[in-house]
Amino acid sequence: MSNLVVIGGSDAGISAALHAKEWDPSVEVTMLVADAYPNYSICGLPFYLSGEVPDWHQLAHRRLSEIESAGIRVRLNTRALAIDPASHTVQVQTEGQAPEMIRYDKLVIGTGAVPIQPPIPGVDQLGVFRLHSMDDSFGVAKYLDTHQPHRALIIGAGYIGLEMADALRHRGLAVTVVEQAAAVLPTVDPALGVRIEKHLLDHGVAVETGVRVERIRHAGDSLRVSGSPTFSKDTDLVLVVVGVQPVADLARSAGLTLGIKGAIPVDRTMATALPDIYAAGDCVETYHRLLGAPTYLPLGTTAHKQGRVAGENAVGGDASFAGSLGTQVVKVFDWAIARTGLRDHEAVAAGYQPQTVEFTTWDHKAYYPGAHELTVRITGDRDTGRLLGAQMLGHWRAAVAKRIDVFAMALYHQMTVAQCLEVDLSYTPPLGSPWDAVQMAADHWLRVVRSGHGG
Amino acid sequence: MSNLVVIGGSDAGISAALHAKEWDPSVEVTMLVADAYPNYSICGLPFYLSGEVPDWHQLAHRRLSEIESAGIRVRLNTRALAIDPASHTVQVQTEGQAPEMIRYDKLVIGTGAVPIQPPIPGVDQLGVFRLHSMDDSFGVAKYLDTHQPHRALIIGAGYIGLEMADALRHRGLAVTVVEQAAAVLPTVDPALGVRIEKHLLDHGVAVETGVRVERIRHAGDSLRVSGSPTFSKDTDLVLVVVGVQPVADLARSAGLTLGIKGAIPVDRTMATALPDIYAAGDCVETYHRLLGAPTYLPLGTTAHKQGRVAGENAVGGDASFAGSLGTQVVKVFDWAIARTGLRDHEAVAAGYQPQTVEFTTWDHKAYYPGAHELTVRITGDRDTGRLLGAQMLGHWRAAVAKRIDVFAMALYHQMTVAQCLEVDLSYTPPLGSPWDAVQMAADHWLRVVRSGHGG
Repeated sequence: MSNLVVIGGSDAGISAALHAKEWDPSVEVTMLVADAYPNYSICGLPFYLSGEVPDWHQLAHRRLSEIESAGIRVRLNTRALAIDPASHTVQVQTEGQAPEMIRYDKLVIGTGAVPIQPPIPGVDQLGVFRLHSMDDSFGVAKYLDTHQPHRALIIGAGYIGLEMADALRHRGLAVTVVEQAAAVLPTVDPALGVRIEKHLLDHGVAVETGVRVERIRHAGDSLRVSGSPTFSKDTDLVLVVVGVQPVADLARSAGLTLGIKGAIPVDRTMATALPDIYAAGDCVETYHRLLGAPTYLPLGTTAHKQGRVAGENAVGGDASFAGSLGTQVVKVFDWAIARTGLRDHEAVAAGYQPQTVEFTTWDHKAYYPGAHELTVRITGDRDTGRLLGAQMLGHWRAAVAKRIDVFAMALYHQMTVAQCLEVDLSYTPPLGSPWDAVQMAADHWLRVVRSGHGG
Repeated sequence: MSNLVVIGGSDAGISAALHAKEWDPSVEVTMLVADAYPNYSICGLPFYLSGEVPDWHQLAHRRLSEIESAGIRVRLNTRALAIDPASHTVQVQTEGQAPEMIRYDKLVIGTGAVPIQPPIPGVDQLGVFRLHSMDDSFGVAKYLDTHQPHRALIIGAGYIGLEMADALRHRGLAVTVVEQAAAVLPTVDPALGVRIEKHLLDHGVAVETGVRVERIRHAGDSLRVSGSPTFSKDTDLVLVVVGVQPVADLARSAGLTLGIKGAIPVDRTMATALPDIYAAGDCVETYHRLLGAPTYLPLGTTAHKQGRVAGENAVGGDASFAGSLGTQVVKVFDWAIARTGLRDHEAVAAGYQPQTVEFTTWDHKAYYPGAHELTVRITGDRDTGRLLGAQMLGHWRAAVAKRIDVFAMALYHQMTVAQCLEVDLSYTPPLGSPWDAVQMAADHWLRVVRSGHGG
């Protein structure tokens, strides 16, 4: 009986463990979980903190008993301290116990990521939080209960920053979001960012863009956040959510050379450069299907897929990671904002001649009640007509997330923009149009590019 | 300057006319419209009759002035009486005027379909309606106003029958649906049909399946509908909505041999067997992408795509119809029901070894409020693992229509069920899962087939 050890119990780790066991039930799988929360939905933390998810236990994708009944040995509060590839051993330590050595035939590293801690003086004091783990969220929840803050300031207007703005408004706090870039949600085009900023304002969120936070200090009972060019605001709670970085010290110590942003290089079988060691999830470089090259793109969806490939291959399979398309969606107040594929600057860097064209229409026939506007931005290659990416903004009930998935399918297959018009998509007046919004946007892109006009 | 004549002003005709003009602005385009309603949304009739669309003018996809300002000459109330391929002429007659001959360089036939009139004694009397044209709907609307019926009986539980059940319940009528097949909505598997029947009952609709209507007659102030094996019901209004058949007399008289169900055979350029004559929409045989063969599948989405191809080719283009996948969706009360691709019996007929597996999950993470159940039935080929079709049922706000579109994209590209798991689809807890429902269903199909169990 062979033996698989998985370091990490979040998306990549659990997928690897479950899929390995499914693929070869005879394999002995041990999953090491650094905290007490295996397979929790980190993406759900904002909804726990908003109060919409009243009990944090609900955030468990699976209960511990479910994981164990799948035949996986779970060791909670157990950290991997060192990997010795030569002897195929991991030194581990369970909280309150002495370190011990465990042997592996195959190893999957799924150590994930941690929030980036920007070098801002004062970022470590009481009332200033990061938000990535269950423990982080307990810290915020406790502070919300005990200190009853009225004001919150969020540094970083990415996905988690905007979700937390929504969450804390939901709790009745006065919320300010501060972003270094010129527009919020820098993962989409500023043309959408400015509209999202307006939507935030409409929901009572103050937004400051182009601001670099330089200091956090106490001022009376408040926390005073200041930055350049000219920014100063007093608040009761600060969230620092400016992205994550891979946790790869263990891998480096084992002898692996780290790559982009310090992530672990892997091939498309999710194998590292060390024998019998795979890695997956937020700790690894991710193959980008459109770039044909690795990048760093930590997402739960990707971690699941990579974990599945790693787990299968660790038990003798022959799976290959198809690659990320950079597909993402976030709900902020009434809106969903989604993207997939490349934006202009990314496409240029990859050698394309991109053109991005925006189109706004209704999510379904306007004569049927409840139609919402949808804005679609399509990026395609002027020379070849190939679809390179799409961005979308609309009401969260306007199927934005699943419409971006239609584009993701198109990107997966390297379709041209014109080809998108050929596909037999569904239609009924309450839910779409004879040419769905994605196809109308594709048609509009073709017209604009054919006429030689800019986007 | 060349001259294109388009017979028909609904989906196929308008698409052909507009796209031809867009492709070659120099072409002279004349569109003959048999009634006064060019480019109306026939799919919207139930929502007009329900009262949800208060003004029938709203059903116009485009106003006449918009079509004309695109440079298209529209002749309303004008019927084509005969086509003479040799002289490239069409004999036409505008209401109240003498017949005349018009010459064409290229012709597109988009004469559409008419409702099937089953040979039921009494089907022609007052209070019994078909529903396909604007005039049909005006007839029903007027009857609803003047006769104030309290009870309605709908013969046929297909898309339009179920939409009308919903519409007439919306108006407060007592509604009975009678269907000859063993379950309602025979375009999806009976396993879904029985659930839809339950949903209809929950919304106050009486359902009679396995009933063949044989007679409609007056009984006092009522219409009495009777059938076998044992059925008799009194009502105030009868709708006969049992499908449509192509309108192809004109094409046959011109010398074309008709094909499946009397539809006009065309190649994938939408050319007929006669020179310079194209045809598109509900009057033609439709190439099925999965069967690789023609079928009869009249749908607005298909008509639009075929019209576009016909229009482009009529003015010198080189377009090809990619084929129908049979993608369809309908909203019935709280539910949307959708399908794409082949069902078991269709797949068997096409030489596959299909297996259909059902899976039920949530449309988004259950911890976020408002999650709805989604039932997905995947049909795949046991031997090759190829995806053959998918059916879905769930709350109409659960993005059923756009999720079926993801499967439609997969079918367009002949993906395997396993490959569906590879694609980087979007995720945020309020709108999906790390593995979207479509991927969970695909994974479940793989497990079931791998384990050798039936569906």
